[in-house]
Amino acid sequence: MDDLLVKTVVTSWKQIVSRLDERFAPLDGEQLQKQIAPNKNRLFYLLGHLTAVHDRMLPLLGIGERQHPELDEVYLSNSDRKLSDPLSAADLKKAWSEVNTAITSAVEKFSVDDWLKQHTAVSDEDFSKDPTRNRLAVFLNRTNHASFHTGQIALAQ
Amino acid sequence: MDDLLVKTVVTSWKQIVSRLDERFAPLDGEQLQKQIAPNKNRLFYLLGHLTAVHDRMLPLLGIGERQHPELDEVYLSNSDRKLSDPLSAADLKKAWSEVNTAITSAVEKFSVDDWLKQHTAVSDEDFSKDPTRNRLAVFLNRTNHASFHTGQIALAQ
Repeated sequence: MDDLLVKTVVTSWKQIVSRLDERFAPLDGEQLQKQIAPNKNRLFYLLGHLTAVHDRMLPLLGIGERQHPELDEVYLSNSDRKLSDPLSAADLKKAWSEVNTAITSAVEKFSVDDWLKQHTAVSDEDFSKDPTRNRLAVFLNRTNHASFHTGQIALAQ
Repeated sequence: MDDLLVKTVVTSWKQIVSRLDERFAPLDGEQLQKQIAPNKNRLFYLLGHLTAVHDRMLPLLGIGERQHPELDEVYLSNSDRKLSDPLSAADLKKAWSEVNTAITSAVEKFSVDDWLKQHTAVSDEDFSKDPTRNRLAVFLNRTNHASFHTGQIALAQ
């Protein structure tokens, strides 16, 4: 029964990631330069931002080392168009895809016990006070974060 | 352990709803007429749309009758500005709040078994083939849907 709960959560994540894949896949480097609305983020920036956030999930969920720490400065610490894009469109799309594959294949092996372990950014003390600060909470938060930006990306079509 | 899984999921829903509450609460009727971007949906339309979608969760999760079926025609079947708004801003905000309260208080009482029951829009046959088409799947889907539109609403600020 627990397994089914967890499988349902992972299915929801996979759905959101695959919807983003469908939006990004057909766009070339030039099309990714388009903004979601006048004077708002470029699609390229959001792809970098989402890749950086998902890349950070690897250590946060205790499932691996970061693959693309070079994205943080451009897509997390700074707003769009402050710094130049460190990767080409093709390389960024490849990074996005590889990071998500790494996450999905790791969490598909998680037991219920794994899901309920604390994530690596919460202290033992805080976790003992609030056991909902677990890996599942991070995973749901990042699924919602991806949905948040999917809504913005949909406006650019 | 199951309870903690389920509690984490409900916490995520509450977080998303409360972020939307914070965005809508300070806006009066005139401010809600603002569009999220040029020629895109008004905030008012999205509030109506989200209220209608959440209202439909009541029968879908088997937790109650619809409270505001009058919203569907305007905010689900038609795009923005096709029909006039059936409720005032104050009444729509009240409906939004009441519907969410009804959902949250019902699902907080759900056992793991309740979460894994089929939702009311899936047939027995389809559910037996795919048991992830359960109430939890609907709940996660609607949480993501709310996040999707939160991302758009954030652009209007």
